[in-house]
Order: sequence, then structure tokens, then C-alpha cells
Amino acid sequence: MTTDLGAQDLTALLDSARQDYSELAGRGLKLDLTRGKPAADQLDLADELLTLPGAATFKAADGTDTRNYGGLNGLQELREIFAPVLQVPVAQLLAAGNSSLELMHDAFVQALLSKLPGAQERWVDQGPIKFLAPVPGYDRHFSICERFGIEMIPVPLTESGPDMEVVTRLVAEDASIKGIWAIPKYSNPTGTVYSDETVRQLAEMPTAAPDFRIFWDNAYAVHHLTDERVEIADLLGLATAAGHADRVFVFGSTSKITFAGAGVGFFGASEANIKWWLSNLGKRSIGPDKINQLRHATFLGDAEGVFAHMEKHRALIGPKFDATLRILGEQLGGTGLATWTEPKGGYFITLTVPEGCATDVVARAAEIGVVLTPAGATHPLGQDPADSVIRIAPTFPTQEDLEAAVHALATCVKLVGYEQRLKQQ
Amino acid sequence: MTTDLGAQDLTALLDSARQDYSELAGRGLKLDLTRGKPAADQLDLADELLTLPGAATFKAADGTDTRNYGGLNGLQELREIFAPVLQVPVAQLLAAGNSSLELMHDAFVQALLSKLPGAQERWVDQGPIKFLAPVPGYDRHFSICERFGIEMIPVPLTESGPDMEVVTRLVAEDASIKGIWAIPKYSNPTGTVYSDETVRQLAEMPTAAPDFRIFWDNAYAVHHLTDERVEIADLLGLATAAGHADRVFVFGSTSKITFAGAGVGFFGASEANIKWWLSNLGKRSIGPDKINQLRHATFLGDAEGVFAHMEKHRALIGPKFDATLRILGEQLGGTGLATWTEPKGGYFITLTVPEGCATDVVARAAEIGVVLTPAGATHPLGQDPADSVIRIAPTFPTQEDLEAAVHALATCVKLVGYEQRLKQQ
Repeated sequence: MTTDLGAQDLTALLDSARQDYSELAGRGLKLDLTRGKPAADQLDLADELLTLPGAATFKAADGTDTRNYGGLNGLQELREIFAPVLQVPVAQLLAAGNSSLELMHDAFVQALLSKLPGAQERWVDQGPIKFLAPVPGYDRHFSICERFGIEMIPVPLTESGPDMEVVTRLVAEDASIKGIWAIPKYSNPTGTVYSDETVRQLAEMPTAAPDFRIFWDNAYAVHHLTDERVEIADLLGLATAAGHADRVFVFGSTSKITFAGAGVGFFGASEANIKWWLSNLGKRSIGPDKINQLRHATFLGDAEGVFAHMEKHRALIGPKFDATLRILGEQLGGTGLATWTEPKGGYFITLTVPEGCATDVVARAAEIGVVLTPAGATHPLGQDPADSVIRIAPTFPTQEDLEAAVHALATCVKLVGYEQRLKQQ
Repeated sequence: MTTDLGAQDLTALLDSARQDYSELAGRGLKLDLTRGKPAADQLDLADELLTLPGAATFKAADGTDTRNYGGLNGLQELREIFAPVLQVPVAQLLAAGNSSLELMHDAFVQALLSKLPGAQERWVDQGPIKFLAPVPGYDRHFSICERFGIEMIPVPLTESGPDMEVVTRLVAEDASIKGIWAIPKYSNPTGTVYSDETVRQLAEMPTAAPDFRIFWDNAYAVHHLTDERVEIADLLGLATAAGHADRVFVFGSTSKITFAGAGVGFFGASEANIKWWLSNLGKRSIGPDKINQLRHATFLGDAEGVFAHMEKHRALIGPKFDATLRILGEQLGGTGLATWTEPKGGYFITLTVPEGCATDVVARAAEIGVVLTPAGATHPLGQDPADSVIRIAPTFPTQEDLEAAVHALATCVKLVGYEQRLKQQ
């Protein structure tokens, strides 16, 4: 650790960082570490979809002409593939459009505008409502709440999931808290995996709100980065056993399995929730794009097919995560200026820099052509009170660009970190 | 006309109808005239889509990788094809998911939950609001209003569109009337085409509500059944010229052009409306299925390609409409028991039977295995006060089934109609 360094040593380190920085500035970099997008070579893995379902192929297993209207629940054979992946019984799992984000958004819309099972009133008629937001978390989740004027209460994310002492206390006492966001496996952006105990508590905890919902965004269910296929406990099953079947909304999609823009989203829940969902959905849609669902069912085959396909992704992005971690270690290890997560799956690495430094680091990086997700994006309303969390998305750049970008980022951390430390002396 | 027949003649006609009916009952028919679905041979016309965009083909004209996230507005080249078709400037036309119905539904959602351009408040905060519903109309439109508790005020549909004397009077005096449904060309179910004068009045009329919207569902823009390619006036252009650009929401889709379940929906509006729409949509979606849009752009080519494709549809469904009209004429012509529309396009024929007879006709038909859209479906809340309108959807059955079904329907009209007339003597 360098935290005990004197002013002279710090000045030398800062000078060195400044020199590196101005050298980088001269290179005219144009690099982007912002969004969790698959790279082109990952998308290539699913290019078979570009000619599927194939000439004159349009019948579902049950004989349905997928080209025509109908089939609100989505294609049975695709739901069968993803039921075990998402831990939802087939009958309670719907296959929808090209995005799970829109399903989460629409879950709020439906709950705002029509009474949820268990609710006394529509959310829009209940006065101000609140949601728990484990932090760091996913900016697009928070944007949905913000858009509907739903207050978010940040809850610290521990290594085993949200701090359940805080969660259980808050939901027990405040009936205006209507739900919690959760990315239970390889969480965005920390890679956190919810422990079995956390899932059990979420399933069983008493809530003051009778219409409490857990938005279980299982976006990275099969997105492993190690040999360990991490499993999580079955929230819907545990909640059902505990008499709280209706509190669980499960979301998932193939966006980071097949094509990010042209995949299939899924919604799973209790029988009562599904009935409620379909009765609302039936006013909105005559059915999802069943051909795209047939295309996916043909391409993936079964759950094992999904797992096998994800191994190919891992072969492509594993080295990117490894390189990121290696460079962070080489550049920042032992400096005391940063810690970072070492995720076993998912799409992100979280870099934690000294308090008050994240915004500056992101700004300095931008000045030399390295775009990072805005500091604060991992927190509700874009406000990280400690200003210390930076999300790194290693998948989209080429290996070469990624390494250059992480190098540059590390340099910015040293620059800003040593500057701060000198000031504080 | 047989309206002046005596009891004896009527009894003879009724006996004959009864005989026909019981003969039909013995045949064990299983026929369906309910929904406006394309038949399999129409879907076959677009089967090229089943292998498009084609191996290794995923770049949009501007170089975008359509497989990845992004592109909230939808694919430029597809929007260019449909801009002239839907009479909306390309920059103000968005290409979306597989359904225009969901766009109409979501337009209500967004207007309910976020302030429309010109609105003082969100619709959800304005107390009870109302919509004008030209009748006969489309049941799925009415279901959306019903689902959100929006009161519908029926307005008679004349041969030139909604009765504009009623419309202009109501919207001028009642600020709680927030909009009107409109299917301006080959309307569902009457085939009505809005006259230029009607469109001009809709564009120019003063409205008490500053946030009034015309839901312009141009579902049958290119769905001609005759050599005449009927054109309607440009509502968005006229409204813009009249200083009411924001009052127009244009909807359209390829559902009855390519695949009913796997097409592309469109939303067009003023710049301010599009900005409002995208700012809300951006919280919901990272972009539509651009591959399906590329698939469609490749298949259709340009607006002329759309027109040429629709000629193939006409060749398949024109004979079905012709047969329906022929049988109605043979069976019911001169009986005084029914009138019907002779549409120049679209998907439906409206059959009008004597007051109080529609429900019975539909029930009698069901008893002998001919399923019709429920009587009343053409009116808000499923209530046709005259109980006289029956919607016929000729496209989906085979020609043979269709002819048998229309024969049976005509028999039921005679049965119910002569029974009623005898009772009234």
C-alpha cells in the first residue's frame, strides 16, 4: 500500500501519472467503455438466425402458423427452453418482444394503471410510492422509476446481495414501498451473486405493502465467465412455498445470448400475476413476433443448447475480462487508489476509486478520448453520494482497444487519486 | 321489396328459411367469419421473409449493425418506404415492433402518465376524460379506452367519415374530450373512406382541449380491392398548416401486408410529439427489432414494391369479397331484410339487419357452426343500441368455406328477419 507515502513520493508518482496522461493525450484515442453491448464477433455466433426459420418453415410444434396473428403467451417450444434457465414453470413463463427492459417498464405501467393482484388500488391512485434500489445498480432500472416519479431508496449491495437487514426493516414498516429491483446473478455492475439466504429472505420477509413486487431481472442467468456455472436459489418457488407467490416478477431475455437488438424477452410470475398480465396485454397486442421465437427455438434447440452457445461467448469475452483485471492489477494494484470486482459472469467490472474521485476520473478519461459510463450512473438519479463507483464494460471494444482504454483509465485514476491525496496532506 | 308482404307470404318465406336452416344444421358446419386475418395463401406471398435478411447480411444502409442494440427511431430505409404510404415525413415517422395496436395502446399510456405537448396535466390527473368513437368501428380500439376507464361517445359514421357536425360541436364545447378514433381509409368494418372535406375539418376544427389527439389508424392505406387506388387527404399536413400539428397521431403497420404476426408497426406525428414519444420510449426500449425491419426493407424495396405486393393480395382476396357480395345479393337482395357495404378496400363488409335482429342472427349462426364476430362488437362496450350491425370478415376462410358461411349467414338473416316481421304484423 502506498497510503503512507510522503509528499515527495506522492509528487513523483503524480508526475509520472501526468507524463503518462499527456502521452496518452497525444495519441488521439477514441475508445468507448460505456455500454454492455456484445461485440460483433459475439453476434456472429448467432448469424444462423439471419436465414432462419428457413424457406417454407413457419409451423410451430403444435401446428400454429407463426406468420399469422395470435398466441399471446408466446411460442410454447421457446418457453420450454427458457423455463429451466429462468426457474419459472413453462405455464407461467411468457415469451414476448425483443426486450426485457420494455417488459419491466410495462410492468410498472400495468401496476400503475390497473390493480395488481393483492393491491387495494392502482399504484397511480396510492399517492407517492417508493422502490428499493440496491446500489451500485443498473441505470436503466433507475430511469424507469424516475420517469414515473417513483422515489428510490438506495440499499447497499453486499457480497451476498442487498443488505437484507436494511431491506427487511424498510419493507416491514413502510407500505408505500412497493418493490425492489434485483439482478440476482452476476449483477450489473458488480457481478454480485445473491446468496441462497438472501433469496430465501426475499421470498419470506413480511412486507407492509400487500402489493409488493420483486423485479427479478435475471439478465445474466447463463452468462458465465468461469468454469463454475453459478446457480442461485429459486425465488419464485421459495416465495410460492412461503405463501408469497405474487410478489415475484421474473424477467429475462436472449439479448446477450443471440442478437442484442433482435432477441426475445421473457416474463415469468405466479398464476394470478400471469392472468393479470395477460388480461392487460390482451388489450395491447394480438400476439408477439412468433416467427422470431420459432427462429430462436430452432437455433437454440434446448436449454443445453443455450449453455453450449454461452460457452462460445465466454471464449470470446473471457480474455477481455482477464485483460481488464490484469491491467488493473498491474497499474493500480498496491496503490491503494482502487479496488475492483472480479466477476464470475455477466458483463461488467466495477472499479471503486477514492471518495470524490469518480467524476474527475471519468472527465479526465473523456479528455483523452476514452468514454466511460458517467460517474453516478450506477445510483438512483445518477447520484453516487461517495462519487467513487465506475462501471467498466469490457465486451464491446476489440481486445486491443480495450487494453488501451483500461490502461488510460488506470492512468486517470492515478492522476486524480494522487492529486487528491497530495491536497489532503 | 317484400316489406308489403302479407302474413301468408311471410309464413311461406319463413318456412322456406327454416327448411334451409335445418338442412344446414345437419351438415355439421365448422366455419369462422370472425377476425380480419389474412389467409395462409396471402401469408405465402411474403415467405421470402423466412430466409431474409440472408446469410451474413445485417448492415443497414448507414452501416449500422442491425444485430446490436440501438436505433430508437427504427431503420431509416424502412421508414423511407412507408413515409409516402402513411403521408408522414420520414423524420417524423418511427418504425417499431410487430404491432400498431400496441403503439395505439402505448400512446394512451404515455398520455396518461406524462404530459402531452400542449397538455396542462397528464391525462391521469385530469379527472374523467372522454374519446369520440365513430360507429360502427373497431372493437380493439374501443377495448383500449374501456381498459383505461375512458368514456366513449359514439358518433355516427356517414359515407364521408364521422358526422362532422356532431364532432365539431362536441370537441368545441367539451375540454374533457381528448381525442377521436379514426380509420380514414377502408374503415373497419364499413369500408368508409374519409372525404377530403372531413379530413380538412378534422385538421382545422377548434377543440376545447388543448391536448386533443386524432388517433389516425391508417391500417388499410394500401389495401385496395378495386382498380381505384383511393387516396385520402393528408391529415398531418393539413393540421400542421392549420397550426394544429400536434393533434395528429398516425399509426400503420405491415401486419396485413407481410406477416400478420411478424410485421412492423409505425408511428408518425409532429416534431414535438415525436420528441415527447422518444423521450418516453427511451426509458422503455434500447431499440426495436432492426433485423426484422431490414428484412422488410429488403423484401419490399420501396413504396412501389408495397403497391405491387398489395396487388397480389387483391388477386387472392378480391374473389372472396366478390363472392360474399354476390351471395348476399342473391339471398337477401330485394328482401328488405338487409343492406351491406361494398368496400373498395380493407378487410370487412358490414351487414346491417333489421333493428333488434343482429344478436339473434349471430346466435342462430353459431348454433349451426358458423362463428361471427359478436353482435355489438362494432360499438363501444360491445353495445350496438340498434342491434343491427354484423361484421363479415371474408379473407381468412377458403373460398369454399366462405361461400358456405355467407349462405348460412343469409339464411339466418331470413329466419330471424321474417320471424320478427311476422311478430310485428
